[in-house]
Amino acid sequence: MRMVDLIEKKRDGLELSTEEINFIIKGYTDGSIPDYQVSALTMAIFFKGMTERERADLTMAMVESGDQIDLSKIEGIKVDKHSTGGVGDTTTLVLGPLVAAVGVPVAKMSGRGLGHTGGTVDKLEAVNGFHVEIGNEEFISLVNKNKVAVIGQSGNLTPADKKLYALRDVTATVDSIPLIASSIMSKKIAAGADAIVLDVKTGAGAFMKTLDDSRELAKAMVRIGNNVGRKTMAVISDMSQPLGFAIGNALEVQEAIDTLRGEGPEDLTELCLTLGSHMVFLAGKAGSQNEARELLEKAIKDGTALETFRMFLSSQGGDASVIDDPQKLPKAAHIIELEAREDGYVSEIVADEIGTAAMLLGAGRATKESEIDLAVGLVLKKKIGDKVTKGESLLTIHSNFEDVSEVKELLYNNIRISKEKVKAPVLIHEEITQ
Amino acid sequence: MRMVDLIEKKRDGLELSTEEINFIIKGYTDGSIPDYQVSALTMAIFFKGMTERERADLTMAMVESGDQIDLSKIEGIKVDKHSTGGVGDTTTLVLGPLVAAVGVPVAKMSGRGLGHTGGTVDKLEAVNGFHVEIGNEEFISLVNKNKVAVIGQSGNLTPADKKLYALRDVTATVDSIPLIASSIMSKKIAAGADAIVLDVKTGAGAFMKTLDDSRELAKAMVRIGNNVGRKTMAVISDMSQPLGFAIGNALEVQEAIDTLRGEGPEDLTELCLTLGSHMVFLAGKAGSQNEARELLEKAIKDGTALETFRMFLSSQGGDASVIDDPQKLPKAAHIIELEAREDGYVSEIVADEIGTAAMLLGAGRATKESEIDLAVGLVLKKKIGDKVTKGESLLTIHSNFEDVSEVKELLYNNIRISKEKVKAPVLIHEEITQ
Repeated sequence: MRMVDLIEKKRDGLELSTEEINFIIKGYTDGSIPDYQVSALTMAIFFKGMTERERADLTMAMVESGDQIDLSKIEGIKVDKHSTGGVGDTTTLVLGPLVAAVGVPVAKMSGRGLGHTGGTVDKLEAVNGFHVEIGNEEFISLVNKNKVAVIGQSGNLTPADKKLYALRDVTATVDSIPLIASSIMSKKIAAGADAIVLDVKTGAGAFMKTLDDSRELAKAMVRIGNNVGRKTMAVISDMSQPLGFAIGNALEVQEAIDTLRGEGPEDLTELCLTLGSHMVFLAGKAGSQNEARELLEKAIKDGTALETFRMFLSSQGGDASVIDDPQKLPKAAHIIELEAREDGYVSEIVADEIGTAAMLLGAGRATKESEIDLAVGLVLKKKIGDKVTKGESLLTIHSNFEDVSEVKELLYNNIRISKEKVKAPVLIHEEITQ
Repeated sequence: MRMVDLIEKKRDGLELSTEEINFIIKGYTDGSIPDYQVSALTMAIFFKGMTERERADLTMAMVESGDQIDLSKIEGIKVDKHSTGGVGDTTTLVLGPLVAAVGVPVAKMSGRGLGHTGGTVDKLEAVNGFHVEIGNEEFISLVNKNKVAVIGQSGNLTPADKKLYALRDVTATVDSIPLIASSIMSKKIAAGADAIVLDVKTGAGAFMKTLDDSRELAKAMVRIGNNVGRKTMAVISDMSQPLGFAIGNALEVQEAIDTLRGEGPEDLTELCLTLGSHMVFLAGKAGSQNEARELLEKAIKDGTALETFRMFLSSQGGDASVIDDPQKLPKAAHIIELEAREDGYVSEIVADEIGTAAMLLGAGRATKESEIDLAVGLVLKKKIGDKVTKGESLLTIHSNFEDVSEVKELLYNNIRISKEKVKAPVLIHEEITQ
């Protein structure tokens, strides 16, 4: 088999066989196939796509390129959730304890990464003492005991995907649905998921800006999952504005606590209940999605959800008393209101620019070397559709710098106020099961 | 400027600016842009093409990536001819002395290369003593004196093209008209041509199998040439069967001598007169193509063409007495006839397979390391449309092996005889001037 012939085959719109895809991924991982052939192939895939069978094969070839997490010692069906990323997305923090509270095992591997705020691990470290440096055995026993634990990324998971992603990033071949879908799915499967609930964001603040693209990506991932024997479904949720109110690490932990207590923002709560009920249903803990939702609502109401979060935090060294005393979370030195300059209705909150404002305050990493300030960030007071009067606070800036004029300018430029009434955007656009 | 943005631009079907193309070729030549980005770009070009302006810019950027031959000390307009390659193509050997005989300066840089037979340099070396290892000054003074000289390839011509071609070869991006056209044109221009006559072959034995593809390539090259200030035209000529009769090095030298004497094969003679008259016209040595053709016919008839060849050979150390005594050319030990197995009309002579047969005899190089046997090859006795009776010779095999059964089988499989009358193929399909 020669790589050049496989590139030509794909270039000419033909289907690569399972054996050919395995040859490519194995060769790329071990270095016998060079970057310059793989980048030509990915560009050909950009133009010619991949069939469902090819996508499933590519996903599994990447899964098999490295270590795979063995979660078989955890009782029950392990359901993982994946979000395609947005601004102020606190769902992971809420969902872990929430579905664990009704008996669904959540064995989460999580990282730091770049972005507007830190990754899940960074956020949780806002709780004093909390750490994810635990061994595999402890991790598994914690999940069996508390139903939820988080471990830092370790091992050599999907090295082919890592190498391929880095290559695509510098060769303008990131924007290919089959490649995006198999990349995401390979990571979830290698991390040991039996079933997967996907939260595909759509809108200005999402990777996929249009509903059509988001739907295509969602379907691609759902089909890969189902084709390789992992029950998978996707929710397409709105990211035309940040989700919830908080954007920042400690601020999102606080928001998660509020939500688990039943006092969180409406949109975040609704999305968590939707995603969570699918997780509970896929895990076989409820006979229907409705029944699953009722279980989750009850867990919030009767305090089990918050208690599960408390147990989870303290099991991994965290000071769980933050739940009762918010003052124990890191606090910024300055809390500054962003006052509306006119009367009207909020018509636009450009999510990624708001995210950039949070990053400028220090809430996220611009490069791998950046230090995160866990205390800082933004808390929205108004969302799209809300009425606002001149002088009223649009949001609160939590900063450790006194001078936030630059951040304020960026925020003013990206929160638009209209004289006419504006409708709040739809939160859940679609649910995709096949 | 970032290469990834330029790949994306081309991927999305936008036009790259002159500055951007220069950035790419400069960066690729000096190694600051890696192979894996360039291969993604060439695959994007495969799908999205290049505008006329981009092609001209790419050509000149590759010309400027290395040395350029300065032929300014040669009097007159230097017209170069390029053929896209075929089987048994003796035109270069004939055209040099032929157009030189009417005063057109031919300053030919030529190489060895791979293929069914050797390159022009190999062929000429069948003449005892002939060599192309001459200095630049001697080369120029020989052209000024004899109007024709051949020098071996030297210097660092179009390194960007060499690097790009090697990359395209292993990434399935060879078959791109803009890339093929700019590759060929950059080499001709760097070699110092003021004007260029292209012989674009079409048919089974050519790189371009269909007339449409050949026309597209011809037009692409003609437009590049004219856009960068080199008068350029193209002839699309038939390569559905080998050109002329001889395929092999010494055999083609003999055929060139015959043709310059006015006794060559009809198709080879006609193509040389066509290409030659365009060269003479572009060089300004005749007021019309018809007038140019008359000059060439006269040069053959009155012996000037053959005398020019004689002078050319001896000026570069060759034993020109081969012209009068063909026995002085290298001779194969065995001359074997391939006898027709049935009566009928020759309907097909699959050019590239016939070329492969010649290579198997040792006439060409399969790899860079192969040694060429200058004596061996094939001489066709029949061409498409010719009547043949059982037992009559189809061609003569000149071999230094006694056992040529394998070669014979290959030849029989690729020369087809039909019971019905067959028309000879058209030799000159089109002439493209813009």
